[in-house]
Amino acid sequence: METGQIRLNKVTGEWVIYAPSRRKRPQDFQQPSQDYSLKDNSRENCPFCQDKQKETETILLEIKDSQQNTWQTRVVANKFPALNFHDNPHRNLEGIYMAMSGYGHHEVVIESPDHQQTIATLALPEIEAIIETYRQRYLKLMEDKEIMMVIIFRNHGKAAGASLRHPHSQIIATSIVPSHRRIQEAEAQRYFDHWARCVYCDILEFEMKEKIRIIVENNLFVSFVPFAAEFPCEIWIMPKNHQADFGSITPQEKTAFATILKDSLSRLYYKLNNPDYNYVINTAARYKAEEPQLHWYCQIRPRLTTPAGFELGSGISINPSIPEVDAAFLRD
Amino acid sequence: METGQIRLNKVTGEWVIYAPSRRKRPQDFQQPSQDYSLKDNSRENCPFCQDKQKETETILLEIKDSQQNTWQTRVVANKFPALNFHDNPHRNLEGIYMAMSGYGHHEVVIESPDHQQTIATLALPEIEAIIETYRQRYLKLMEDKEIMMVIIFRNHGKAAGASLRHPHSQIIATSIVPSHRRIQEAEAQRYFDHWARCVYCDILEFEMKEKIRIIVENNLFVSFVPFAAEFPCEIWIMPKNHQADFGSITPQEKTAFATILKDSLSRLYYKLNNPDYNYVINTAARYKAEEPQLHWYCQIRPRLTTPAGFELGSGISINPSIPEVDAAFLRD
Repeated sequence: METGQIRLNKVTGEWVIYAPSRRKRPQDFQQPSQDYSLKDNSRENCPFCQDKQKETETILLEIKDSQQNTWQTRVVANKFPALNFHDNPHRNLEGIYMAMSGYGHHEVVIESPDHQQTIATLALPEIEAIIETYRQRYLKLMEDKEIMMVIIFRNHGKAAGASLRHPHSQIIATSIVPSHRRIQEAEAQRYFDHWARCVYCDILEFEMKEKIRIIVENNLFVSFVPFAAEFPCEIWIMPKNHQADFGSITPQEKTAFATILKDSLSRLYYKLNNPDYNYVINTAARYKAEEPQLHWYCQIRPRLTTPAGFELGSGISINPSIPEVDAAFLRD
Repeated sequence: METGQIRLNKVTGEWVIYAPSRRKRPQDFQQPSQDYSLKDNSRENCPFCQDKQKETETILLEIKDSQQNTWQTRVVANKFPALNFHDNPHRNLEGIYMAMSGYGHHEVVIESPDHQQTIATLALPEIEAIIETYRQRYLKLMEDKEIMMVIIFRNHGKAAGASLRHPHSQIIATSIVPSHRRIQEAEAQRYFDHWARCVYCDILEFEMKEKIRIIVENNLFVSFVPFAAEFPCEIWIMPKNHQADFGSITPQEKTAFATILKDSLSRLYYKLNNPDYNYVINTAARYKAEEPQLHWYCQIRPRLTTPAGFELGSGISINPSIPEVDAAFLRD
């Protein structure tokens, strides 16, 4: 009987089970069709198409193409916001419990005027415009002193929680820092106190030496499958230079990040036939941007498996795919 | 504009967002049909039907009905185990990372000989037999000194990760205690050090006084929607007496737990039209069974929403339903 393995995620402190009896090859996860399976796939009803949002909504940011002919990206308030900056961020007790009003910001980044595109199919300058949009809104939202954390994320496809086909991502800014984030900070702090090194920098150095989990790299970024990946074909994209704060990305890094993001998502798109996925940019909370032990990264999670009761109760993931096999599949 | 709310889960330390713009009523989550939507719904191919497992597998435990005519529950090894007790539990370093072989146990509890039933539709003595099965296997698995934690869970329906229609639950025993669990222990420890009280006992006392989140109770158990429920119609079932360890459940408690479990799941079944759900029994890890600050409970999570990129990146849940509204809906 083949031996199974359990691996520890150095960043989150959680374990992941790799079971030989449940093993699949990455190509087993190829999607049956290119159909997005979203209910409303028509341009006619799309709130992000053409100039519809101009009539009804405030455009928070617009980036034009180089000829200034048309808009490339637009940011608008989410019509169904999870949080609301008309509320206030004060905590209160409700009996023995703590609560607060739903203070925060919730914005939509419309990534292109073209309804049919996605990051894998957009041109590089268009993706650079998306990253620049993220950067500008990130810095703008951090000007609100009540905001403690900004989460930039993308839901692609129905299984990833998307309800609209038109290419878009979202930004949520909260006045709370979740326990989830503090735990990762504490893991990184303990590592730093032991080794006097950033754990993420050490992971990068080790991965670039080992090479077996690397998908692709350029002069400023590395894209790889993490050692204890929780999901099949999970991808982390990390800046090579130590940098806790996404907001301090340089123009050169912006281009390099856009390049490797397009490349990584294109590999998923073409090799797995456009699977649903989420990505999120994990960046430092307020007051942590200068910390020597934190490092921002983009985490891409294809939605190819269904977490069940065991994951709910234990926090342990069961991954039917092996990170080194996934990396080779995505690399070649 | 209606004010949103964010609530802190006292047990996990995580926050949950309740957004008015995303609000739904519990009845909006009613399922369209009674169909389980599982691929293989036929008795003919069912590995748990009739006496098929007798021919090929070791039956680890069998509980007969009171007339000793037929079996009520059976426990067999999972054919596609996540973990394996032929491996060994020793840790090793792989470069900078920690790993171990996939040591553990993975069993299936066949809950009834009847393919078409589920807990909501079984008779009380049949559910008592399931709880007794859990108890016996729990105690048996804890005899393996390498085992640190036993997770008893049930996946009901495709969206909850179930691949077979026949009523069953699963037990996974691990030689690791995940960070996820240690964090809840640390939260409970801090509360105990401050208040000299079990946080779960205080939650129970408060909920029984407030009544607004209670679904149903009997002399030994309470079923309620937690104050910071992560999911619509999430239910916690908790013993009224302080008890860290599921394995120490008494015969009276077994009957009372079976009664309230059937009642709670029946409310989901009839009021939401048989939704997919997971449940898990959260019980103390080894060496923690006597701790004054821990308390076992059964967590039921209906699968009515899709966690997306924001949840992945932040650990914060967005719940479109209000716990007090869910509780009233399930109670009445």
